Amino acid sequence: MNDLDTMRHSCAHVMAAAISEIWPDVQFGVGPPTANGFYYDVLFPSPISEDDLRRIERAMRLIQRQALPFKRITRSIGEAIHMAEVDGQYFKKELLELLRDTGSTAIADETGDDHVVDTAMVDEVSYYSVGDFEDLCRGPHVASSNKVGYFKLTHLAGAYWRGDEKREQLQRVYGICYRTKQDLKNEITRLEEVKLRDHRRLGREMRIFHLSPEVGSGLPLWLPNGTILRDELEYLAKEHERAAGYERVSTPHITKEELYYTSGHLPYYKDDMYAPLDIDGKNYYLKPMNCPHHHHIYLSRPRSYRDLPVRLAEYGQVYRYEDSGALSGIIRTRGFCQNDAHIYCDIDSAKDEFIRVMEMHASFYELLGISDFYMSLSLPDLKNLDKYVDDTEAWKAALEIIVEAMQESDLPYIEVEGEAAFYGPKIDFVIKSAIGTEYAISTNQLDFLAATRFGLTYRGQDGQDHPVYVIHRAPLGSHERFIAFLIEHYRAAFPIWLAPVQAIIVPVSEKFYDYAASVCKDYRSPKVRNGSLGLRIDVDQSSARMQKKVRNAVLKKMPLILVVGAKEEQDGTVSVRTREGIDYGPVKKDHLLQLLIEVSESRNDRLLYDALDASK
Amino acid sequence: MNDLDTMRHSCAHVMAAAISEIWPDVQFGVGPPTANGFYYDVLFPSPISEDDLRRIERAMRLIQRQALPFKRITRSIGEAIHMAEVDGQYFKKELLELLRDTGSTAIADETGDDHVVDTAMVDEVSYYSVGDFEDLCRGPHVASSNKVGYFKLTHLAGAYWRGDEKREQLQRVYGICYRTKQDLKNEITRLEEVKLRDHRRLGREMRIFHLSPEVGSGLPLWLPNGTILRDELEYLAKEHERAAGYERVSTPHITKEELYYTSGHLPYYKDDMYAPLDIDGKNYYLKPMNCPHHHHIYLSRPRSYRDLPVRLAEYGQVYRYEDSGALSGIIRTRGFCQNDAHIYCDIDSAKDEFIRVMEMHASFYELLGISDFYMSLSLPDLKNLDKYVDDTEAWKAALEIIVEAMQESDLPYIEVEGEAAFYGPKIDFVIKSAIGTEYAISTNQLDFLAATRFGLTYRGQDGQDHPVYVIHRAPLGSHERFIAFLIEHYRAAFPIWLAPVQAIIVPVSEKFYDYAASVCKDYRSPKVRNGSLGLRIDVDQSSARMQKKVRNAVLKKMPLILVVGAKEEQDGTVSVRTREGIDYGPVKKDHLLQLLIEVSESRNDRLLYDALDASK
Repeated sequence: MNDLDTMRHSCAHVMAAAISEIWPDVQFGVGPPTANGFYYDVLFPSPISEDDLRRIERAMRLIQRQALPFKRITRSIGEAIHMAEVDGQYFKKELLELLRDTGSTAIADETGDDHVVDTAMVDEVSYYSVGDFEDLCRGPHVASSNKVGYFKLTHLAGAYWRGDEKREQLQRVYGICYRTKQDLKNEITRLEEVKLRDHRRLGREMRIFHLSPEVGSGLPLWLPNGTILRDELEYLAKEHERAAGYERVSTPHITKEELYYTSGHLPYYKDDMYAPLDIDGKNYYLKPMNCPHHHHIYLSRPRSYRDLPVRLAEYGQVYRYEDSGALSGIIRTRGFCQNDAHIYCDIDSAKDEFIRVMEMHASFYELLGISDFYMSLSLPDLKNLDKYVDDTEAWKAALEIIVEAMQESDLPYIEVEGEAAFYGPKIDFVIKSAIGTEYAISTNQLDFLAATRFGLTYRGQDGQDHPVYVIHRAPLGSHERFIAFLIEHYRAAFPIWLAPVQAIIVPVSEKFYDYAASVCKDYRSPKVRNGSLGLRIDVDQSSARMQKKVRNAVLKKMPLILVVGAKEEQDGTVSVRTREGIDYGPVKKDHLLQLLIEVSESRNDRLLYDALDASK
Repeated sequence: MNDLDTMRHSCAHVMAAAISEIWPDVQFGVGPPTANGFYYDVLFPSPISEDDLRRIERAMRLIQRQALPFKRITRSIGEAIHMAEVDGQYFKKELLELLRDTGSTAIADETGDDHVVDTAMVDEVSYYSVGDFEDLCRGPHVASSNKVGYFKLTHLAGAYWRGDEKREQLQRVYGICYRTKQDLKNEITRLEEVKLRDHRRLGREMRIFHLSPEVGSGLPLWLPNGTILRDELEYLAKEHERAAGYERVSTPHITKEELYYTSGHLPYYKDDMYAPLDIDGKNYYLKPMNCPHHHHIYLSRPRSYRDLPVRLAEYGQVYRYEDSGALSGIIRTRGFCQNDAHIYCDIDSAKDEFIRVMEMHASFYELLGISDFYMSLSLPDLKNLDKYVDDTEAWKAALEIIVEAMQESDLPYIEVEGEAAFYGPKIDFVIKSAIGTEYAISTNQLDFLAATRFGLTYRGQDGQDHPVYVIHRAPLGSHERFIAFLIEHYRAAFPIWLAPVQAIIVPVSEKFYDYAASVCKDYRSPKVRNGSLGLRIDVDQSSARMQKKVRNAVLKKMPLILVVGAKEEQDGTVSVRTREGIDYGPVKKDHLLQLLIEVSESRNDRLLYDALDASK
């Protein structure tokens, strides 16, 4: 435990002391430090609300000011159990009994708190007291209660005792804790921003996706706005992939068991796959990956060196098991649609193909304003490589190609000891949103094993068959995770090419509905190449007043608000405002249409804003 | 049995007589008439080949010329079984024993031949002889062997005895048989055309889809050419639907069991669904339909009369059980992607919405040159409606709306006693390909039950909640069946907007590769709105000679072949030929590009050909 963790853990004790002053009958679970503070699981006599957090904070500050020393006490385990019983601390009692009976800290593992007891001491356990409050704990702690740093209680959540939904539900009280006031302030600001950008809240408010318990956990329904985001991303990928020589394919979602034995997903990947379903006495699986299907398309006819590289792309739907506890909005779901492709090439072009894949990543990130990203190369234990790979030479050759490609790409990367995929070395792209949250968004692999498993070969110039290398890649990851990222990154204020509604026309009164409708029709009809089928323009015909309509559009984060009244109708203009509050005044409607088309096709909002600035 | 069937069945006897002359040791199964002739299942001493069919035909014509009478003989069943044993006709023996033991013709039902025995006569069975050949048969037959009409043996297929793959595999010998020589000739021509247009063969040759036994029966892999067809159709549908006020959504493929109890698919539709898969102890099903998911999107927020109609569209992947014997290419598959949508409207607009749906069908058909189609209204037994519908009044009201809509649409329709869907009356669109094959391509339903089952309501102007009507519709059916239809309809010679390769550039020698490449680049780069991402133009850089390249392009059914040599390079032209053999000579390359864009966007090839004709 580092100093900051010790401080945070001590702060949790101070909070527990404060809580037991206010509610003497509470029972405590566990209370470990976290990445930015601490929490404590508590069973209150009746559930508390977020309003109570300020009251607890006040009591904590009193204890803090008193500079009460943290004191260590030891007791025999028998005495400890007896005392927990007397005090009515049944969770602590359960924990002590478990320790006594099994000598194990299993319970602490389950709850995520390894500070509860010291397993080296089964017969005797340690307590720490601060003031009148005493808590089972292995320590260490700060010297006294005035040393617990700067803290703030942030929120409450429900937590089952031992993470078991059949057990008691406690309330988890979260706090943040830092060494300096400024650090605490920064974290508060960051948390506020995180809350504002929370993709679950924005996804609901902006009607992007809908999670329905009747459909199932982790199986999002994409609403019209979300489907526009998906379609636009698909179009972006398709356009880049077409330019880079990819062909598109489409493959089924269920497949015979045998295919996954051929691929090695069974048994290596079984835990990530769903249980099979039975068709006519045979097992079929939902596909967890698209590669085996693409391999069969590669195999559907003989390939010669003239055909290589073959690049097969698909927005492919896959299904992977996630524990229900791990599901979170659309970041982690049970089914997702991957921007997938497999490149089949000879060994001599593998490096260049890999570099081109990395460059495609970088070009997407540049377009989306993601300036902060890096690649993470997963290395196995190279000394023990032969323990889990048959062909260590091939593995090392593939690794060498990847490392050279990474170096030549000039993109930032790190190396980590990690789990390499069973079929070859891999790199992950990690991107950071505008508030610095890291998303592992896409994985690239150089696969030398598929050729052997599937017999993927090409006829060389020498008339002989040679194995191909397979590159697995998905620069935009999945719709689900990538759109979660984009919601956070843009705070759901999407650029014009992505925005579900690109501009809303606001007539100042009913008299101008006809003009509004005619502008809307003009704007919607041109055949622009922007991924969907034309500009996405609406008219606000609600009964609200003009100012209210403008505010609504801003709340819905529509990029452009086009106000039309008598002057505009007479001059053939629209008055342009942005969701950021800039008022560009009247603009000729045909000129704006031209700009909108350019922006949709270039995916560059600056073209429009610069032109409007220039003509202001 | 009508006269023609009697003739065909007698022809099957003549064929059996001929076969037993040539191969005395054959065993016969059953031999019924078919829609255009007959077949007989035969176990030959060793399998025969299609070449042997001519030999059998010659022997049949000899028997025919002899004008041998068909004679009826009866035997006791005991004697019949004994004789079958002596003659080594073990299939006939099995059939007789089954009749004796069960009094049933089950075996004949299984094999599709109800002419074998007369179940009214269990103790005594009848035989028919022609010349020396005698066959167990209930009759009737023509008077003599010269009355069996005009026939031709067409092909062989494998057939398991009693359709059971664990039993003996016989050879099924197919023949066609007609009353007149002209009828026979017409059928031969039709069969040749059917063969030429066979979507399985063309699908393979044109690299549209690939069926892999490793992936599973009825689960096609779409190759790049097929994926272009899918994408183009999707784009067509999206464009029409956008213009008609639809919004697009996207929904998951697996769903909790409960949802299908709510919808009524369980238990009503269970046989068409796959077995459930287990996730965390709960049953999940592959979705057989998209409606329940769309209903949940409808439910994701409150709806008012101002929001109606809500039209939710999705190219939705569904999975329905098909018996392995029913699978055929991509006409009948186990998973397919539907051009689906659901329209939520009030009762007053249901008829107009239904008419608009029918009009959308008609507009697609017109675009695709499908002039022959009709709607088929499935009627339940109206007298016994209350036996399987709770609310007969609502059912009849829905039926009335549909009938009125059909009448007002002015499109052709028929009424059939059929299986109405459990949630309301339905109509099927039946379209005919260029050779007259009928495809039931899309089903439309007016659903008054979903509102009750799912609580689908809207807040009316009166402030009260009212149930919505739901229209289920899918004008283009599924990618799978519709593309099978289009392959047959167009003989895979697709119009320019659909063709996987729209034009191939053929340089007359290597000297003109650069010019060819520059034309190709110019043609591929413009941002045209044609569903994919630009024109699909290639250069043939193979080592073949020019004439060979042109022939290859014609074989691959590429609409346009653009030959370039010295003259073309100098003049900035390309020499345009069509796959139909028309030579338009040199055309300015920019002019052709403009025409190609227009054709892609209008989906009307005539624009291009007329313009080329005019400038010739």
